[in-house]
Amino acid sequence: MKINPTTHTIGFIGLGVMGRSMALNLIKAGFRLSVYTRTVDSAKVVLEAGAQWCKTPQEVARQSQVLITIVGYPKDVEDLYLGSGELVASANPGSYLVDMTTSSPVLAKKIYEAAKARGVHALDAPVSGGDVGAREARLSIMVGGEKDAFDTLSPIFEAMGKIIVLQGSAGSGQYTKMANQIAIASNMVGVCEALAYGKKAGLDLSTLLESIGPGAAGSWSLSNLGPRIIADNFAPGFFVKHFIKDMRIALDSAQELGIELPGLAQSLEMYEKLAVLGHENDGTQALYRLYDKPQAL
Amino acid sequence: MKINPTTHTIGFIGLGVMGRSMALNLIKAGFRLSVYTRTVDSAKVVLEAGAQWCKTPQEVARQSQVLITIVGYPKDVEDLYLGSGELVASANPGSYLVDMTTSSPVLAKKIYEAAKARGVHALDAPVSGGDVGAREARLSIMVGGEKDAFDTLSPIFEAMGKIIVLQGSAGSGQYTKMANQIAIASNMVGVCEALAYGKKAGLDLSTLLESIGPGAAGSWSLSNLGPRIIADNFAPGFFVKHFIKDMRIALDSAQELGIELPGLAQSLEMYEKLAVLGHENDGTQALYRLYDKPQAL
Repeated sequence: MKINPTTHTIGFIGLGVMGRSMALNLIKAGFRLSVYTRTVDSAKVVLEAGAQWCKTPQEVARQSQVLITIVGYPKDVEDLYLGSGELVASANPGSYLVDMTTSSPVLAKKIYEAAKARGVHALDAPVSGGDVGAREARLSIMVGGEKDAFDTLSPIFEAMGKIIVLQGSAGSGQYTKMANQIAIASNMVGVCEALAYGKKAGLDLSTLLESIGPGAAGSWSLSNLGPRIIADNFAPGFFVKHFIKDMRIALDSAQELGIELPGLAQSLEMYEKLAVLGHENDGTQALYRLYDKPQAL
Repeated sequence: MKINPTTHTIGFIGLGVMGRSMALNLIKAGFRLSVYTRTVDSAKVVLEAGAQWCKTPQEVARQSQVLITIVGYPKDVEDLYLGSGELVASANPGSYLVDMTTSSPVLAKKIYEAAKARGVHALDAPVSGGDVGAREARLSIMVGGEKDAFDTLSPIFEAMGKIIVLQGSAGSGQYTKMANQIAIASNMVGVCEALAYGKKAGLDLSTLLESIGPGAAGSWSLSNLGPRIIADNFAPGFFVKHFIKDMRIALDSAQELGIELPGLAQSLEMYEKLAVLGHENDGTQALYRLYDKPQAL
């Protein structure tokens, strides 16, 4: 199949902060969209841009040659694909199912197998890059599945992202996203500890960043979230509660694989304490605040 | 005082991998050097480049208007400045003492006060950038002490480094270096866990880096040490044993300041296990190997 915006319909389920921007970018690239989401209000801007509303996930599936989902938790994905949403059962044979939710690698493989049994192609394709990356079509899209399906869908991925890499067979997109979150988890601890220590030592934190930002201690988080911490800006780029969700999936996945990740476990524990203290709707840089609360550490 | 290569002598004590390259860069910049080091063999290349050998630290101090030290441990620094090395007692009034060892911030303040009492200027000025940075005069030099002294010595710093920042009063250079090592400590855990998890999940690690290197998981360590890990190259850029030394100083310093750093504590514990397993002379990226040894984690 060659993807052709004039003859093919893309289904899109899940119009949260990420999904909405991604759907709009698909419309902008000329694709025809059929959409469904649990809270119809979130669909408003996408419907105004020309998307067609469907009353159920099944209806979206029946209308689509390519169906994209980006929802909340692995349990939502499972329910949508294999449970009450019936996406696998309703998908047209030969069509494509693409889950872009950050979700469980094992579930991605399960969906792939169930889809395959019906002659449907399934890909897992979680993203990173946040709300800004979604808006500006600069996402990193990490794909697991078959190469033919990946190649066929590349015009669609290119309408939403910039770094688009097939990582391997089904589940590999999710494994890659987990590795991404694992690297971030411990690094956030390092960034917040370096700044909290510097503050306690009486250093000027902006001057500190001049020395340590460009060298071996440097990272995206230090350069991008460090200045927010210094400015007392804890507004979410990426929510604490969503990061906790991702780290839990990663820790479960590590257990399934039989590998211990003490750094991830410690970071998750710290973020859970942070959430208990009422910061679950702050940005991930709010971990810095935990260091002012020694009883919590 | 205005630093003038034709009339002033720089003393240099400590000619290890770092000190040797830094001394050679000073000679290259036209400075006259008097040197001392515990093992005369390490001085060879510097003496051949024109430096003058002194038999004792005291002799270096008496000949110098500016005296630079870069040795091993805080106890070596203390012994050199305030103990048997008698540097503070032997330094010429009005001269400058610059310790570039990664050492204790509290000790740096103690040396500053002792020097001040004799009319001698003292700066703490640890570096980062490793052997390559030292060789290519691209070090980051983090300075604590008085602004006048810092300004006076800037031609000397500029001969050895590129990012040269006065961080504040005595001890601030060491505090900054500690913050640098604290940020690295947890990030190394994140980098190694992300790659160890990816490996266990069956991903191709170079392809993994394509997806996660440029985004929010990105860091100097991931981009520079990740490829070495993938290539099974555990040769030292920065030795495990030296990193352990730095993390111990940082953890002591955090305790003195009354701040808990659980990420640093965990990273140090893991590196200590790695050293026990015989990897103390590997590079810091060898932490990756610990994940193949689940009984050690």
